[in-house]
Amino acid sequence: MPIYKAPVEETLFLLNDVLGISHHANLPGFADATPDLLEAVLTEGARFAEEVLLPLNQIGDNEGCTRNADGSVTTPAGFKDAFKAFAEGGWIGLASESDYGGQDLPYALAAAINEFVTSANMAFGMYPGLSQGAVAALSLHGDEAQKLLYLPKLISGEWTGTMNLTEPQAGTDLGLIRTRATPNTEGSFAITGSKIFISSGEHDLTPNIIHLVLARIDDAPEGTKGLSLFVVPKFLPDADGEVGERNLVECGALEKKMGIHGNATCVMNFDGATGWLVGERDKGLRAMFTMMNEARIGVAIQGLALSEVAAQNAVVYARERRQGRAISGAKDKSEAADPIIVHPDIRRALISMRGFNIAARALMLSAALAADIAYRSPDEEQRQTADDRLGLLTPVIKGVLTDRGFDNAVAAQQVYGGHGYITETGMEQFVRDARIAMIYEGANGVQGLDLVGRKLPKDGGRAVMAYFKEVEGFVKENDGDEALAPFVTPLKAGLDDLQKATMWFMQNALAKPDNAGAGATDYMHLFGLVAIGHMWGLIAATANRLIDAGDERADRLKEVLMIGGAYVERAMPETALRLARISAGSDALMAVPEGGF
Amino acid sequence: MPIYKAPVEETLFLLNDVLGISHHANLPGFADATPDLLEAVLTEGARFAEEVLLPLNQIGDNEGCTRNADGSVTTPAGFKDAFKAFAEGGWIGLASESDYGGQDLPYALAAAINEFVTSANMAFGMYPGLSQGAVAALSLHGDEAQKLLYLPKLISGEWTGTMNLTEPQAGTDLGLIRTRATPNTEGSFAITGSKIFISSGEHDLTPNIIHLVLARIDDAPEGTKGLSLFVVPKFLPDADGEVGERNLVECGALEKKMGIHGNATCVMNFDGATGWLVGERDKGLRAMFTMMNEARIGVAIQGLALSEVAAQNAVVYARERRQGRAISGAKDKSEAADPIIVHPDIRRALISMRGFNIAARALMLSAALAADIAYRSPDEEQRQTADDRLGLLTPVIKGVLTDRGFDNAVAAQQVYGGHGYITETGMEQFVRDARIAMIYEGANGVQGLDLVGRKLPKDGGRAVMAYFKEVEGFVKENDGDEALAPFVTPLKAGLDDLQKATMWFMQNALAKPDNAGAGATDYMHLFGLVAIGHMWGLIAATANRLIDAGDERADRLKEVLMIGGAYVERAMPETALRLARISAGSDALMAVPEGGF
Repeated sequence: MPIYKAPVEETLFLLNDVLGISHHANLPGFADATPDLLEAVLTEGARFAEEVLLPLNQIGDNEGCTRNADGSVTTPAGFKDAFKAFAEGGWIGLASESDYGGQDLPYALAAAINEFVTSANMAFGMYPGLSQGAVAALSLHGDEAQKLLYLPKLISGEWTGTMNLTEPQAGTDLGLIRTRATPNTEGSFAITGSKIFISSGEHDLTPNIIHLVLARIDDAPEGTKGLSLFVVPKFLPDADGEVGERNLVECGALEKKMGIHGNATCVMNFDGATGWLVGERDKGLRAMFTMMNEARIGVAIQGLALSEVAAQNAVVYARERRQGRAISGAKDKSEAADPIIVHPDIRRALISMRGFNIAARALMLSAALAADIAYRSPDEEQRQTADDRLGLLTPVIKGVLTDRGFDNAVAAQQVYGGHGYITETGMEQFVRDARIAMIYEGANGVQGLDLVGRKLPKDGGRAVMAYFKEVEGFVKENDGDEALAPFVTPLKAGLDDLQKATMWFMQNALAKPDNAGAGATDYMHLFGLVAIGHMWGLIAATANRLIDAGDERADRLKEVLMIGGAYVERAMPETALRLARISAGSDALMAVPEGGF
Repeated sequence: MPIYKAPVEETLFLLNDVLGISHHANLPGFADATPDLLEAVLTEGARFAEEVLLPLNQIGDNEGCTRNADGSVTTPAGFKDAFKAFAEGGWIGLASESDYGGQDLPYALAAAINEFVTSANMAFGMYPGLSQGAVAALSLHGDEAQKLLYLPKLISGEWTGTMNLTEPQAGTDLGLIRTRATPNTEGSFAITGSKIFISSGEHDLTPNIIHLVLARIDDAPEGTKGLSLFVVPKFLPDADGEVGERNLVECGALEKKMGIHGNATCVMNFDGATGWLVGERDKGLRAMFTMMNEARIGVAIQGLALSEVAAQNAVVYARERRQGRAISGAKDKSEAADPIIVHPDIRRALISMRGFNIAARALMLSAALAADIAYRSPDEEQRQTADDRLGLLTPVIKGVLTDRGFDNAVAAQQVYGGHGYITETGMEQFVRDARIAMIYEGANGVQGLDLVGRKLPKDGGRAVMAYFKEVEGFVKENDGDEALAPFVTPLKAGLDDLQKATMWFMQNALAKPDNAGAGATDYMHLFGLVAIGHMWGLIAATANRLIDAGDERADRLKEVLMIGGAYVERAMPETALRLARISAGSDALMAVPEGGF
């Protein structure tokens, strides 16, 4: 069975020392988030993930979910008890409003816990994860009665939630949605249509499931401007707000899929189901968009989480597995072979995982912190700055953490040789599970287009200019620091490539938008390299400062610096390749006739 | 169900026009390989793959193999009939010696057929594929009695073969093999030990299975110098060479694994099984090595084959799936959305697959042709030149075609969005199946080490110097050709990077071999980029010549040139990144303490 040890110390170092979460004590809920509390919560979350969720991960993959003849769905053995314990632990509402039973703690802390949960058992984590999405949607767009009715039960884990967007003909292009909503006399709507790929759509964890559904009210315009958001409970709440009459919605089928077998991916059939409008009519897509940053960061966390658990196992295996001798001469003559961690090519693979994960975790936590500020700060300018940063970085983090997270899961599997291909070791499950994160919540190609087509030009480029200024500021501030040179020098070069690429779009994509589309994925990865390089710069500067001050973590921090140095040296030169590809433009791609591929 | 159309025309263009197979009519068997015969064989092989094997591919994945209580193994429905038809078609022995029932045709032709078979059904293709491996081993190292006894039955498909190398503690490091061979009185040996990951190790396709087994004769030295090769039939041949007494070997278990479910991956237990020495005692590893090029090219073919079938499906889906509008304005106003092939980012993905596949096929066929020359040419110098080229390019082709083949399968799956994650479309099977090719027959990290540590320095660098001269010759010859500039210019830059990297090893790896290990994987990919770029140069030069001559294929060849141009433009700048990583050396990687990752 795979091992997993949640990175508690590293997360504390990132939150406290690198990102300085204590500087935000003015935010609601943050005053409680003292270093001691952060440590206590992370330690307890780590324990739950390691002891309760990890042992269920392979069981979930092996058993999968079962749809019974009556349309009910049975989750894998152990999931129901684990969910009950998870809910009772208060984990679902860690960052939710205390008015509805939440704990009001920083989202950055909840994001760290989500990472631990996902590393231990991604398929399980998607049940509370979807609830958190429904909580966010109802919090932002529901009326007070809806909030009072649903939020406490979703936050306590008495019920769970889902998001119903996709239809067979409508994936990325939600404007093609056909599910209809016909007004009933008493203010509700009759929802009719079929949704696919609905994660956690039906299960036996809780007695009720609250579906949030995008549908088109009769006579609403075609396209995205005619979509409204509805809340459609599996069981209609009775007068006391408890489980009442069964609604006309059911799971028509479970999808057989590559991974996340423990999560029920449902075809949901709405057959005149009763639903209530959430927010304004015809503004459903806008409601979705306001939650999108958080949802996409949630998927980015999945990429990181799988990369982390896969890497941890690869490191352990590389220390234990003995094959061949060190190229520079036998290292351990007491055995017939050396552990494979002596081989430079194995170390290259491990560094590519570990070096990415540490900085990606910093980046993810910094985005989560930006979300906290954007939602909670009393200062409007601070909110806007954070919202700009969050909006800009979200597609980068979603695309890059899931693409590289998958690559790292594959690389970790490779360290195992043939044993990595065998189900028993669990490494191939990480690859299969990680694969979906590149696809859902906006396929990664769409993240690139969002970045280049929407986020760059937004507000006259305010967000990207502020970001460049931030990174430039770091570079300038540390340019003379010899100890930081291994981090600052490649970051400077990478930022230069990123700025050139941005300029190239300004000069070439306005007249010919295909040039933006052709370079979007490469730009997203170029941006990600700079963002990761920037995080490594911050981490290294912080580590050096702490080491110089005689911090008790100095020994580990020195290792972290070694990992970072080895990583940055090999990773950052990729910025030049990305720039070259972007500058190639779209002409050659668009020249091929549709039938000519 | 996925579609597949074997690339017959393209293969004929590569064999006849680009690689000039007719110039080798002096080789035994090649005189018969006229363009008409090549076309007839490829067309018939394509038909078999498309009509017989493709429909069994998802069935095989879904059903897998079953080990019965008596240790027998049942293959998926339809595999037995398909194998019988495949054998009767003479496909197994296409390139085998006619003395033993083979057809003596070029291995390059058999390699093309193997690609078709593997695209249609990789798990099936591994049954005859392993037989071909056993045929090669016995042809090269068996004595005449062994050849007469086994080869006709393996070639006719009456029996099949396997290779038994790996043990739990002995993967890459075969020197750790523990299986023992104890001499019997009558010249045979009693083989005792356990082998794992044995593809096609037990099945119901044929009444007998011929295992080739690496084992250590009692009192033989430890390490690789004490290994001998044995032939161990499941049923001992009787006096007439027919199935006789059951031997003491059985399938102890089937491995549950990520993909290739239709192929039985067995734990094989030898419990004093009767075996006969093949070749010299203690020279078993050397016997293995002489077959390794062919086996590794066989795995490279798997990488290409999966990349090809995945790409074909992605292209069809991109033409049919409608989501969103072209960024430059709606293309098809008769429908609510445009086909996604209008989007530049989708085209970028399709070009990365198609552009790779065409040149990778050329590279694979050129290596197969080198194998033909190396084994069949009457001219010793020609044999040696071809053997040098084959030995040098084999690790490159194995590593690069399987790494990029997997990437392309992933990219093809991505084109499908959420539908690609669902089992039904078949795209995720391609990813799972393709994954193993990066691992077996020498994990790709080992290919890099073979290239850098063995193939570069061999014979004073004779092979690599000849290869550089060949590519330089092409560049010089075509440097002034404006129509070829999009191919020749990046090839020239790539070759320059490759030569710099080679020089870097010469200057830095002799004193510190870890520098070679640290750069091996990047060097393998750098070499692969140049080899692919070289093939695109040859293809483009040939296409231009044919177009100028008014060839009837001119329209298609123009499309091929467009694909190549778009591919090369984005792919070749990667050579600089690879050089930068190689030049980073091993210091930072080796500095991290073993416990510090």
